[in-house]
Amino acid sequence: MNDVTPFISSQAEVVDDLVAANRILVDRGVLDAYGHVSARDPDDHGRYFMSRSMAPALVTADDIIAFDLDSNPVRAGENRLFFERVIHGEIYKARPDVMAVVHNHSRSLIPFANSDTRLRPMVGNAAFLGEGAPVFDIRTVDDDGDLNVCTVPQAQGLARALGQHWVVLLRGHGAVAVGQSVRQCVRHAVIAETNARLQIEATILGPVHFLAESEIAYARRAKPKDPDRAWRLWKASVMGTQA
Amino acid sequence: MNDVTPFISSQAEVVDDLVAANRILVDRGVLDAYGHVSARDPDDHGRYFMSRSMAPALVTADDIIAFDLDSNPVRAGENRLFFERVIHGEIYKARPDVMAVVHNHSRSLIPFANSDTRLRPMVGNAAFLGEGAPVFDIRTVDDDGDLNVCTVPQAQGLARALGQHWVVLLRGHGAVAVGQSVRQCVRHAVIAETNARLQIEATILGPVHFLAESEIAYARRAKPKDPDRAWRLWKASVMGTQA
Amino acid sequence: MNDVTPFISSQAEVVDDLVAANRILVDRGVLDAYGHVSARDPDDHGRYFMSRSMAPALVTADDIIAFDLDSNPVRAGENRLFFERVIHGEIYKARPDVMAVVHNHSRSLIPFANSDTRLRPMVGNAAFLGEGAPVFDIRTVDDDGDLNVCTVPQAQGLARALGQHWVVLLRGHGAVAVGQSVRQCVRHAVIAETNARLQIEATILGPVHFLAESEIAYARRAKPKDPDRAWRLWKASVMGTQA
Amino acid sequence: MNDVTPFISSQAEVVDDLVAANRILVDRGVLDAYGHVSARDPDDHGRYFMSRSMAPALVTADDIIAFDLDSNPVRAGENRLFFERVIHGEIYKARPDVMAVVHNHSRSLIPFANSDTRLRPMVGNAAFLGEGAPVFDIRTVDDDGDLNVCTVPQAQGLARALGQHWVVLLRGHGAVAVGQSVRQCVRHAVIAETNARLQIEATILGPVHFLAESEIAYARRAKPKDPDRAWRLWKASVMGTQA
Repeated sequence: MNDVTPFISSQAEVVDDLVAANRILVDRGVLDAYGHVSARDPDDHGRYFMSRSMAPALVTADDIIAFDLDSNPVRAGENRLFFERVIHGEIYKARPDVMAVVHNHSRSLIPFANSDTRLRPMVGNAAFLGEGAPVFDIRTVDDDGDLNVCTVPQAQGLARALGQHWVVLLRGHGAVAVGQSVRQCVRHAVIAETNARLQIEATILGPVHFLAESEIAYARRAKPKDPDRAWRLWKASVMGTQA
Repeated sequence: MNDVTPFISSQAEVVDDLVAANRILVDRGVLDAYGHVSARDPDDHGRYFMSRSMAPALVTADDIIAFDLDSNPVRAGENRLFFERVIHGEIYKARPDVMAVVHNHSRSLIPFANSDTRLRPMVGNAAFLGEGAPVFDIRTVDDDGDLNVCTVPQAQGLARALGQHWVVLLRGHGAVAVGQSVRQCVRHAVIAETNARLQIEATILGPVHFLAESEIAYARRAKPKDPDRAWRLWKASVMGTQA
Repeated sequence: MNDVTPFISSQAEVVDDLVAANRILVDRGVLDAYGHVSARDPDDHGRYFMSRSMAPALVTADDIIAFDLDSNPVRAGENRLFFERVIHGEIYKARPDVMAVVHNHSRSLIPFANSDTRLRPMVGNAAFLGEGAPVFDIRTVDDDGDLNVCTVPQAQGLARALGQHWVVLLRGHGAVAVGQSVRQCVRHAVIAETNARLQIEATILGPVHFLAESEIAYARRAKPKDPDRAWRLWKASVMGTQA
Repeated sequence: MNDVTPFISSQAEVVDDLVAANRILVDRGVLDAYGHVSARDPDDHGRYFMSRSMAPALVTADDIIAFDLDSNPVRAGENRLFFERVIHGEIYKARPDVMAVVHNHSRSLIPFANSDTRLRPMVGNAAFLGEGAPVFDIRTVDDDGDLNVCTVPQAQGLARALGQHWVVLLRGHGAVAVGQSVRQCVRHAVIAETNARLQIEATILGPVHFLAESEIAYARRAKPKDPDRAWRLWKASVMGTQA
């Protein structure tokens, strides 16, 4: 009778995870007043969910809006939308395997975004960083001087730089992490930040030994053991629920 | 019937922002037991508001005093005034566009104040740092050995070093940030501190890529998108109000 | 009448310390969602106690399980066990003097695990680090690319790398600390992390002066003065008890 | 009628400051489970006050004991005393101007204690560091390998290394700060730690500019402006009193 997208069954679970993800990412220092996380609609892969433009710490299920992959809101009349939401739509187009996307400015990633030193995996759970996170320079698309990713060509350029990686850094700006689920996306974003800190500190000590190629390859074919334990603990600390 | 400066309409808003600014700047690590933030009177540009000499964390509207631009209190009999209030008066004289000033000693800025390495913008929201924050050396004015900026000639020297910048560092001392509003001034001070931390950590990784000239120039002519979102969130966390 | 191992007298004390150790190690940043600490059964040195597989912050006495030194649970039917529990069993086999073991991924140790710079004692209470903590590279045992220590040969290799040390670092992974009691093991793990941070920061300043050989030798024959004061304070802050 | 030293008038104030100092120094990261702070008896300069051996965070007025300058308790039967209390007695003997002493192991000072890089003043309020804090190496006194300062000759060596300075670093151990009052001693210890952090981070940026000789000389003859503002704020945050 109306055009509200009903959130039922697995959609409801995705939205629940998405709300928790907003708060967890703030609690873990990945998001602050800015940045945004989205999830692809599990029932319609041509849509994604994301909050209206607001501080992530304050997001509730009522703030979640459905978008098509051109990043237009499904329901007419929505306003106060993130300018950079095209990042999400264009990545979902380019990467059918991706079910969640976060754009952030976490503090240990920016030094790598502005350096020729690549962010590389220090430990097994960061093996998803592979041979090193690529860096997207928006000047390869256009050069007007606004570093925000607000146009389709810019977001397409970003998606190309991401390629088959799970994390891409944005020169002078921040990062984008993606995952096959909201939880994996959150894990990628949190671990990328932690790994960056470890790598900066290891660099003080001298040449750094990163994961071997065989270890990176192993992680590509193996699943992590009990990855949701961290999610449950992180969620409990922000949502007041039992871990 | 008395000489109390009435705080009405936009003055009231400025004072409200000024009280919040004191607490936000403590909460963000920009001020500690020392330092001070002021706002030009919106109804009389020849006056400015600042608290009496006290710990910024404890400032309420009752502690706000009006000063003329020679940094004398408008109302006779005020005492317990900041020794360094001339910083504020002389900058308001030299920079008609400036509506707020903060003097602070935040920890990541002092390394740059005592170094030949200039503080330069790492990300878009720090573009206001331009080609790099200038450093004021009080010995260019006099050399008695007290590093505090307590005389008009010292404050004039500081204002000259600031020039058309938004942040100036004080060798062996701290920093001054200015803005076209209290909120912008707070944003400049918080972002300068954050950017300094990013730059220190990036320096560990090797040569740092800063914003390009075109990106700095763009920021000079463009307004930031939704800059008050951070202010609202920061204020909510210190004032117990809704963000 | 049943196969439940009764916790009496000194066993009860060990279990009580083990529960506190889980929480202290989280509070001190040594454990997060992952990692595990165990204690040898004081009444049967062929057994050890450890929680089931769970977040250490949530461990209570009810979660503690008894294992034999082949890391099989003593009571049939136990499930949800740590994959890496062989670390504990094989170290207890190789080191009869060891009464407690912790495996962790604390952030300041990993830079040393991935570096040729050895972790060496900066202060007297870190003298147990001796001439430097050894680094275990799991590729010296096998090379399948999973960095976790899940098989007996891998754990035996780790125990060999530990040798007579109190701390061993695991390349691309984390660390293991051991002690002659739960309390000493906790102290070793906490101090190793603290010492790593001190050493990283000292490295920024230039060549680092570590403890002299005579000072390391002294610590081998002397007992620390009042080491339990830190334990009592740490326990009080996590268990709500009087220090 | 008994040998209890009555705490009256200015003694009462000193003891009150001493209790607050214990808690402030923990809150500021200068003390942890270990370390100790003392104050000379204002009515009898041949005595000093210090807590019994315990965690500084828990000290109350009831825990304060009077010692003579040979570091023997004035009242017979006192036990549980700090092994290193001779540090205090010997410094009070060597420095009649010193009214308070703290021995600590704060984390940013130890890198300088183990380095040839001297701790030097970065900002005006750290001018008391002068040309750089001296480093005491206990091996210049004896070489048994215990780094603790427990004998009179060791403490005399430490007092000689301190000389006319306000801070001395102890190789492989920690630091001692002194002051003309409890509050000044606390300020010296807190600022030394803060200055060390600033200097480490400045070192990452390149050659560091420290205070000029004339600025250090000025601080020797001038009093700091409103130094108690920090004390009042620090005390309020630990004692629940109004700042």
